[in-house]
Order: sequence, then C-alpha cells, then structure tokens
Amino acid sequence: MDDLTARIRAFAEERDWQQFHTPKNLAMALAGEVGELVAEFQWLTPEQAAAVMDDADAGARVRAEIGDVVIYLTRLADVLGIDLKDAAVAKLAEVAVRYPAEQVRGSAHKR
Amino acid sequence: MDDLTARIRAFAEERDWQQFHTPKNLAMALAGEVGELVAEFQWLTPEQAAAVMDDADAGARVRAEIGDVVIYLTRLADVLGIDLKDAAVAKLAEVAVRYPAEQVRGSAHKR
Amino acid sequence: MDDLTARIRAFAEERDWQQFHTPKNLAMALAGEVGELVAEFQWLTPEQAAAVMDDADAGARVRAEIGDVVIYLTRLADVLGIDLKDAAVAKLAEVAVRYPAEQVRGSAHKR
Amino acid sequence: MDDLTARIRAFAEERDWQQFHTPKNLAMALAGEVGELVAEFQWLTPEQAAAVMDDADAGARVRAEIGDVVIYLTRLADVLGIDLKDAAVAKLAEVAVRYPAEQVRGSAHKR
Repeated sequence: MDDLTARIRAFAEERDWQQFHTPKNLAMALAGEVGELVAEFQWLTPEQAAAVMDDADAGARVRAEIGDVVIYLTRLADVLGIDLKDAAVAKLAEVAVRYPAEQVRGSAHKR
Repeated sequence: MDDLTARIRAFAEERDWQQFHTPKNLAMALAGEVGELVAEFQWLTPEQAAAVMDDADAGARVRAEIGDVVIYLTRLADVLGIDLKDAAVAKLAEVAVRYPAEQVRGSAHKR
Repeated sequence: MDDLTARIRAFAEERDWQQFHTPKNLAMALAGEVGELVAEFQWLTPEQAAAVMDDADAGARVRAEIGDVVIYLTRLADVLGIDLKDAAVAKLAEVAVRYPAEQVRGSAHKR
Repeated sequence: MDDLTARIRAFAEERDWQQFHTPKNLAMALAGEVGELVAEFQWLTPEQAAAVMDDADAGARVRAEIGDVVIYLTRLADVLGIDLKDAAVAKLAEVAVRYPAEQVRGSAHKR
C-alpha cells in the first residue's frame, strides 16, 4: 500500500489540495464514495448483485467506485498516520477473540 | 494486500460466514463501518479532528474503525474479484485527466 | 413537522449545542445514524429484512435508529432553513418527469 | 407526513416499483442519498457550509439531496409501518434522559 499512499499524496500536492484534505473532510468524502458504491447494489437482487462483475457496464462502475473508496481511505490513513494493513490486522485479532469460530459458526452475527 | 485478503477469507471460512458475505451485504457492512468512522469526527472542530490521533482514546477508536473499514472493503473486493490497488491506480489515472494539476491547483474541487 | 422541528431546536438550545450543530457536522451525524440503520439490515436475507418489525428486539432497534435519522435530518433542515416536506414534494415532481410511469413500469431503475 | 407518505406510495405503485422497495433496498438507497448530501459539504469550510443556502447552485443541490433523503426515509418507514414523527419523539425522550441538560450543557457530546 505504501506506493499507493505516495502516489495519492503526490496527486494531492500537485494540485495544492492538502488544504482540503483534513481528516474531517476526508471522512466525509469517504462516506460519499461508499454511498455511491452502495447505490450500485441497491436495486439488485442478491443473485444479480453476486453476478454484477459479469455485466461489463455495472462491473466497471463498481470497480471505479471501489477505486474511489480506496483512494480516500488511503489518503485519510496517510493524513492520520495510520497504516491500513496494521489497523485491519489488529482489528481482526480483536474480532477473532470476540467471535470464537466454534461458538459462532454459521450463525448470523451481530456487531 | 494479498496476505490480508487471505487472512480475512480464512476468518470468514472458519466461521462459515461466506453465506452472509454477499456483495450486497458487504457493501452495507462497509457503509455501516464508514458511518461509525464519520461519527468519530462529527462534533470535532477541524483543529480537533486534525489532532485526533494525539488523544489516546479517540485515536484508538479511529484506528479501530479504520480497521473495520479495511476488513469489509478487502472482503468485498475479494468476493467481487477486484484488486483494490489496481482499482485505485486506474481511478487515479482517470481523475488525473479530469483534473489537470495546472487547471485546478488550489481550488475547491467538485465531483 | 414544524412541531418536531421546534422540539428538537429546544432540545439543542437547552444543552447549548447550537455551536456543534453546523450543517457540516449535522450532515456527518446523519451519515453516522444512517450507517447504524443500514447495519441493522446488513446480514438479514430479504425475507428476514421484510419481517424485521415482527421481531421485538430488532424492531425496536430499527425504530430507534429511524428516530435518530429523523432527529438529525430535521435539525439539519432547520439550520439550513429548508422545509423537509417541500423539498421532498419538489424532488418527487422532478423525478416524476424523469421517470414517466408508462416508460419505466416494473423495470429496475437507475439514478 | 401522512400525505407525503401517500404520494410517495402512489408514485411507487404507478411504476410497479414495490418489488424493489424492500427494507434492505430502501435502507441502501437512503445511505446512497445521504452520501450525496454529505458530498455537498465535504470540501467546504465550516463558514462556507453555514452559508451554503446563499449560493443559488449549491443551495439548490443541497435542497434536492435533502428531498431525496426524505423520499427514501418516508418510503422506508411506510414499508416498515413506522411513524417517523413518533419514532423521533420517542427517541428524543430517551436521549433527554441520557443527556440531562444541566449535566451536558455546552460540552461536545459522544454517543
């Protein structure tokens, strides 16, 4: 991810957009992009959603929206000084303790 | 990211949670986690938000929420067969054409 | 809605929370609450989701989350000077032109 | 709100869209629209956001996005059999107990 972080940072700096890239603003931008991603799936049946990448147009839109989400998430993490992978691995370890496999297997999980 | 994708996939499989991890459900889970991340910043001034990682409690919460976002984003991309980095790089190239540095420098950008 | 707007405004004023209730912050709070609402549905099948109000616990949670969404939406509209019903009626009229009933009947709609 | 609920229901029925308007799908649509609303504010300073309705173009966009949010929220509540105002009043009463005015006055509030 480090190379991607550097590219996105350079992209922002070349446009003098660091002034807009505050944590608050980037969290909002991330929410906006995730909203667009969710919208791609909103009227699809579970079956249609599962096959969305087989549709050239819809698949390209989903891929582009995911690209946007990654860009803002990476930028937010950069601005906050957080390593995305470390944060995920730490959280996964925490969740593994909260949801032991043998106890929760196959049951719908609540947060 | 590949190692993280594998870990999260194993985590789901050990719990027989693949049945819940449809694209539609994962997009919703991602939206839910991004909502929690945004909530961490909602009442902070821009200055407080910029210094959020200096506060041990708030910083830990932000890091944990970002971990959750990465987990669901990685899982969604896995289920869809999308490479997160490739999607971001492709989108960045597209946006670079739409927003040439010399034309947009320093100005608030619209989508 | 006017009475509700007044109640929520009084609630905020009694707590001197107007300072936090900027449009930007309220939009974030709304996103956070909608994230919690979406999370209530994320692992449910379409059938389970359709019957969610028959489950006392889940139904109460959904109702509470919807209450939160209405509170922040009403407060945001109050701060912006927007009438919620007028805004919805105006948008509905616009959408009716864009999606004529005889042309779109029964087909999945895109934005 | 009842008149608005009826109008939106008629709008959906004229288009035979009830089949798409499941709670799960409507919650996603709501999240998508709130994402668009948040995006209107993402790059604005607090001052710019507070004055957004003075800008004809941005003000019209914000009003339209709020209209969309009200439409999907009203439709979701209709499908679930929830009264929006009752849900908000009930939640406000609950929050009033949790955050007594004399104890929380003027301090940033956490959920």
